[in-house]
Amino acid sequence: MATMTQTPEPPYYAVIFTSQRTEIDEDYSEVGKDLLELASKQPGFLGAESARGADGFGITVSYWNSIESIQAWKQNGLHRIAQDRGRSDWYRWFTTRICRVERHNAFDRAEG
Amino acid sequence: MATMTQTPEPPYYAVIFTSQRTEIDEDYSEVGKDLLELASKQPGFLGAESARGADGFGITVSYWNSIESIQAWKQNGLHRIAQDRGRSDWYRWFTTRICRVERHNAFDRAEG
Repeated sequence: MATMTQTPEPPYYAVIFTSQRTEIDEDYSEVGKDLLELASKQPGFLGAESARGADGFGITVSYWNSIESIQAWKQNGLHRIAQDRGRSDWYRWFTTRICRVERHNAFDRAEG
Repeated sequence: MATMTQTPEPPYYAVIFTSQRTEIDEDYSEVGKDLLELASKQPGFLGAESARGADGFGITVSYWNSIESIQAWKQNGLHRIAQDRGRSDWYRWFTTRICRVERHNAFDRAEG
């Protein structure tokens, strides 16, 4: 079970990454885990969450405090070689959307 | 296998809905399907995509041409009773983030 990603009051930024996997699994899980750990140490990183169904379609959203922090992470060397592997091996297709979060609402059953 | 959601040139808007399901399944799939069909007929709807893993955590993103079209859909009567059922039955927690999409990139293996 996932916990809710806590983000600050808007505005902040989100990267919506949607992807369809190939059937090539080599290094995928390990790199994904390491990449998330590395991202979480970058300036401006606020959080990330990910879901993928049995059909191989997935959505990952990462949250950042500025467009600049997103651009810096995009240019990170380890992230770039991972992007290359994504294109050559892991993904049939993907899209990346950079967004400014304007409003944010939450419901939590535990809080009634 | 999912196909890429085709959206226009930015700016446009996205609603990022993240949620953790309960174990209550009654009406969930049917209402979800009908709700998507109804949403797709609303003015300003551009597309939607959804992924949920085996742990019950899911992300749905819908795309719209304006904040006004998002607000109108939020107030739709059938959508509102579905939201009530979501709170009472289907979701342990959820968040809704309304975003302005600033940039959009895509990669498709089929296009080389």
